[in-house]
Amino acid sequence: MFFASDNTSGVPQQILDALGRANDGFSLGYGADTLMERVRDKVRTVFEAPEAAVYLVATGTAANSLALATHIQPWQTIYCHRVAHIEEDECAAPEFFAGGAKLTLIDGAHGKIDPEALRRTLDEAPQGVHHVQRGIVSLTNLTERGARYSVAEVAQIAAAARAHGLPVHLDGARFANAIAAEGCTPAEMTWKAGVDVLSFGGTKNGLMGVEAVVLFDPSRAWEFELRRKRGGHLFSKHRYLSAQMDAYLTDGLWMDLATRANAMAERLEAGLVAAGVRMVHPRGGNMLFVEFPLKAHQALRAAGAVYYDWPAPPPADAGADFPHQARLVASWSTTEAHVDGFVERLTAAL
Amino acid sequence: MFFASDNTSGVPQQILDALGRANDGFSLGYGADTLMERVRDKVRTVFEAPEAAVYLVATGTAANSLALATHIQPWQTIYCHRVAHIEEDECAAPEFFAGGAKLTLIDGAHGKIDPEALRRTLDEAPQGVHHVQRGIVSLTNLTERGARYSVAEVAQIAAAARAHGLPVHLDGARFANAIAAEGCTPAEMTWKAGVDVLSFGGTKNGLMGVEAVVLFDPSRAWEFELRRKRGGHLFSKHRYLSAQMDAYLTDGLWMDLATRANAMAERLEAGLVAAGVRMVHPRGGNMLFVEFPLKAHQALRAAGAVYYDWPAPPPADAGADFPHQARLVASWSTTEAHVDGFVERLTAAL
Amino acid sequence: MFFASDNTSGVPQQILDALGRANDGFSLGYGADTLMERVRDKVRTVFEAPEAAVYLVATGTAANSLALATHIQPWQTIYCHRVAHIEEDECAAPEFFAGGAKLTLIDGAHGKIDPEALRRTLDEAPQGVHHVQRGIVSLTNLTERGARYSVAEVAQIAAAARAHGLPVHLDGARFANAIAAEGCTPAEMTWKAGVDVLSFGGTKNGLMGVEAVVLFDPSRAWEFELRRKRGGHLFSKHRYLSAQMDAYLTDGLWMDLATRANAMAERLEAGLVAAGVRMVHPRGGNMLFVEFPLKAHQALRAAGAVYYDWPAPPPADAGADFPHQARLVASWSTTEAHVDGFVERLTAAL
Amino acid sequence: MFFASDNTSGVPQQILDALGRANDGFSLGYGADTLMERVRDKVRTVFEAPEAAVYLVATGTAANSLALATHIQPWQTIYCHRVAHIEEDECAAPEFFAGGAKLTLIDGAHGKIDPEALRRTLDEAPQGVHHVQRGIVSLTNLTERGARYSVAEVAQIAAAARAHGLPVHLDGARFANAIAAEGCTPAEMTWKAGVDVLSFGGTKNGLMGVEAVVLFDPSRAWEFELRRKRGGHLFSKHRYLSAQMDAYLTDGLWMDLATRANAMAERLEAGLVAAGVRMVHPRGGNMLFVEFPLKAHQALRAAGAVYYDWPAPPPADAGADFPHQARLVASWSTTEAHVDGFVERLTAAL
Repeated sequence: MFFASDNTSGVPQQILDALGRANDGFSLGYGADTLMERVRDKVRTVFEAPEAAVYLVATGTAANSLALATHIQPWQTIYCHRVAHIEEDECAAPEFFAGGAKLTLIDGAHGKIDPEALRRTLDEAPQGVHHVQRGIVSLTNLTERGARYSVAEVAQIAAAARAHGLPVHLDGARFANAIAAEGCTPAEMTWKAGVDVLSFGGTKNGLMGVEAVVLFDPSRAWEFELRRKRGGHLFSKHRYLSAQMDAYLTDGLWMDLATRANAMAERLEAGLVAAGVRMVHPRGGNMLFVEFPLKAHQALRAAGAVYYDWPAPPPADAGADFPHQARLVASWSTTEAHVDGFVERLTAAL
Repeated sequence: MFFASDNTSGVPQQILDALGRANDGFSLGYGADTLMERVRDKVRTVFEAPEAAVYLVATGTAANSLALATHIQPWQTIYCHRVAHIEEDECAAPEFFAGGAKLTLIDGAHGKIDPEALRRTLDEAPQGVHHVQRGIVSLTNLTERGARYSVAEVAQIAAAARAHGLPVHLDGARFANAIAAEGCTPAEMTWKAGVDVLSFGGTKNGLMGVEAVVLFDPSRAWEFELRRKRGGHLFSKHRYLSAQMDAYLTDGLWMDLATRANAMAERLEAGLVAAGVRMVHPRGGNMLFVEFPLKAHQALRAAGAVYYDWPAPPPADAGADFPHQARLVASWSTTEAHVDGFVERLTAAL
Repeated sequence: MFFASDNTSGVPQQILDALGRANDGFSLGYGADTLMERVRDKVRTVFEAPEAAVYLVATGTAANSLALATHIQPWQTIYCHRVAHIEEDECAAPEFFAGGAKLTLIDGAHGKIDPEALRRTLDEAPQGVHHVQRGIVSLTNLTERGARYSVAEVAQIAAAARAHGLPVHLDGARFANAIAAEGCTPAEMTWKAGVDVLSFGGTKNGLMGVEAVVLFDPSRAWEFELRRKRGGHLFSKHRYLSAQMDAYLTDGLWMDLATRANAMAERLEAGLVAAGVRMVHPRGGNMLFVEFPLKAHQALRAAGAVYYDWPAPPPADAGADFPHQARLVASWSTTEAHVDGFVERLTAAL
Repeated sequence: MFFASDNTSGVPQQILDALGRANDGFSLGYGADTLMERVRDKVRTVFEAPEAAVYLVATGTAANSLALATHIQPWQTIYCHRVAHIEEDECAAPEFFAGGAKLTLIDGAHGKIDPEALRRTLDEAPQGVHHVQRGIVSLTNLTERGARYSVAEVAQIAAAARAHGLPVHLDGARFANAIAAEGCTPAEMTWKAGVDVLSFGGTKNGLMGVEAVVLFDPSRAWEFELRRKRGGHLFSKHRYLSAQMDAYLTDGLWMDLATRANAMAERLEAGLVAAGVRMVHPRGGNMLFVEFPLKAHQALRAAGAVYYDWPAPPPADAGADFPHQARLVASWSTTEAHVDGFVERLTAAL
């Protein structure tokens, strides 16, 4: 009953096998390995983007920060949601990589940027020399609250950016989950909707620590490479990143993993709703934000269930019926037994 | 006959096995994995430093840059050798992480800082408000030219730094090779000789991409953690770094690997010297810088030998006897067959 | 009828005279001029702070950015009001000088930080490694909306900061106006209320471009000096800054200038209120934010009155009675004739 | 007998008068003053560069750092002389403003970049992703050792830069002295010789603290404006900078001042040489680097002469005939009496 985060799970056997295969012999370093050529081809095929520049890094913070820094100037601002990962969970890495740029926070329900609020903010941004300049719009799908932008909604955000000539970044730490749930193609969710640069997550969906950055417009590719190196994010034994991403994109593994995680979250949601639990945010993929009485929380914890209180632990004086809120994340390795056990315990406690 | 670099080799089976074992079940992320506790203990034991703070990152550039930035201010300078990795091969990552600090270059034979030159430079550095201030001294062992500082020589450099109250950083990308060749303890080469912070390399010596940063004085540990996160170098699935380093430090694997690499370099050197090849720098561990006639180079390349021309490719009009220079690096996976084959080809060509 | 800003006025004759006197002969540069010693003494006397470190720079942006950067780390955040000058009008200079730090915006009426909102934000700020750390609290008096913190209110803000061990910065671009209106001593408004570092404005109150930074705790003085130099803000012919600040602090000139500006704003307010104009924010010193019908605005502009529409120009289709808002700033050089002429025109137009 | 530096002198009466005139009435701030239009026109006329973008800042460090940062990326390097002001005397301001860029030092006699050394360094600079990339070439005229590049020599340096597509920056803190001595036009020394951006010094030649940055290619003008603001170098009461530069460029004042300073240095040189003093560097304008016996130094100091020991104070045990070296700088305000008095004292002491 481990629902703390999708990054607390391991990796599937295919990934271990791929590492084993990649380990044979000598290989040129720093991205010149032959596996990386295959990865590049596969990413381009998956995204129907034959010109895209594709790079691997090991963390989502690196992917986001390098992608953003490559598209803005230090005196510009990044428009993102108030609860975006780049705002709340990266210790100001985007500001660091972008040389002191700013983040401008936009509101919106369920972690989704409200397009009208974005439009208004962009329209009203003063552009004189005293003010930070408009830089880029960054959105996250799935959002930090587990919701999902539809393709049309991504396009709406991108159109607001485009109206001011701004590029669009998509933080896709859970991109696979979003695609799997939305039932669209990767191209539809990205460049066809107006996205210029994607952090294409692998780590939360079954890799050890591999994210791809996909630059649909390759004109800044060399700058990205220099920023990656300078940030300490270019791996000498790069083949071990390549091997994982290669296996991830083989025979649809990445979609299978995300589909399984989503299905487990759906099953969990169904069980919880049947038990009368309130969903705080609509489920977009593999994450649930739920509200249930404190007594249920206590029973679950006593039974060894692991998940985050969200947004906060219960007050010290909260009673048994206090409406406690929590975050539950399913991953590719979540099983029906985990889910059903969790639902049973909770139902029993109510 | 692959002598391009020690980072072109794979990892030993123990490392793959460790990854497989670490893969089971759920694990807290971001360094809170239980394996990391074991790694911390082992590093402290290996270095006889029970108070040391220990962190893992995935690249040498990250290790060096974060270690240095944690010890200096942006208006200070890092004293290092003119050919140090941090000066020549990191695309100004130290300057980036340290917020615009400077590197002050010191000369010395074979990539080793001349202690007298360092002393003079430090003594003469103007310290008024117009000038960058003295920050830290960074040395590399093995050096970029394959030479080795003895323990006494490290202590001499550290004493020069200490005379001005400066901390000392040791870039130990090939620390294991240096220790194995020097026959000293890790403590003797580091804190006992005056080193404050160590980049303890694993990647070049058989890991996929893991380096430890060891802060012998743990007072800046929290700053290091924040800088690591902010640099995008904190891994969510941290257990895969821990597992590798844990295996590396188990049953002396790290020393075995380095000893083997050194032995292969020694065997190669013996064969080459016997064939009349000149050593450009004295061998300190697993790297050779050699000079042989161009005709030998051509024969070796034709036979599939891989290594770097160093410092430069031969001129277009060079004749068969042109004294060509090259770098040859042995790794843990270099075999006697590789070495002997190389020597035979070369001998035959002369 | 020029009410655009207090920085559009010139300097009083005393300042010109002081420059003339300072011009004689040779003088050591970079702050080693003898006039600077006098300035330091005077500032310390005025603030009853015999240990304070005192530095001069030429712009408010430099004063604020250097003062802030000297007190925080790049991974920390500056708490300030949503409309603070450092947030809205300095093109991310604080972020630049502080190496990529963040600003966290607090709301509150009339440009004043709501102490309860600040307390809550500070209490709830997550302090793990993923998050920016609490750095400093910066408040502005007079605020950007012309209101004034009382001494007790400054102390309240400072106490909230102190509860978390944070230092406090006061942006005093209009400090003299605040002091003059509040009727307190400079010490009462600053270190006695818990302020650690002050941007002590001169430019808006009659100097050509001189601001003092006062570090009540001098322990970071040398760091400030290095940051000032490195920012290009250390003047070689420093005597011309010293001379202005010296004259400013002689015979209470600085208070006389501010008192006059405040009196003109008060007279303007009285006239406007009598004419039925609404004050958008309470007047704290020399700035008014007013609302009057568009027809009055049009008449005033036709008569040559200069001031800023605030927050925005009237819509294109606004009618004669549209409630237009504007900012009116009095300075030391504003005359009764300016004020009365403005009031007359407006009254006539209504 | 004050020869410490040209920035220890005051300003001529014309500058004080200009400030007095500029002081009347209200004026828009931040460079929108009408005087600045005149300055822009005058600079363009003086440089025969009708398209040039022209900006004022208050310090040479600001001018250099902003000019350089506007032309390079953080992962590039600035090629300059080993003793350039940007390397030795700006506390790493260029590195700060350029986001962590590097300086690559070139040797050459008398502070002048050796063109052959520059060419070689540029040709051999590795351009892979591991290395800082070529950014800009910066030269200083007069040099920090008082020597002068001829127009042909500037063109030679610029040609070496151009061969690699690099822009060229000229640090002209003593540009007027160089022009006056060289007898060429400002255009010949700058854009006609291949210079892209000039720090056009005023402070050392009679202004209180005003330098112009001239961008001969105006395509980066807006970036420069944003960097200036963000660096805290945009003055609200900008008219006081404009007024000084306007007067400086009126009726050839700037050339008169430089010509006078050069003439005083020439007179001093003649007197010293006649007394047997050795010139350490050839005089290019208003600076002398000289060597005379310690006894002369002691006599001069006893008589109140002020100048810098250069490069260092005499050793404690130096005898009366120790060949002491010093720097002597003449300014617009140096008089024949100063010069002759100095020469007399020295001659008497020998």
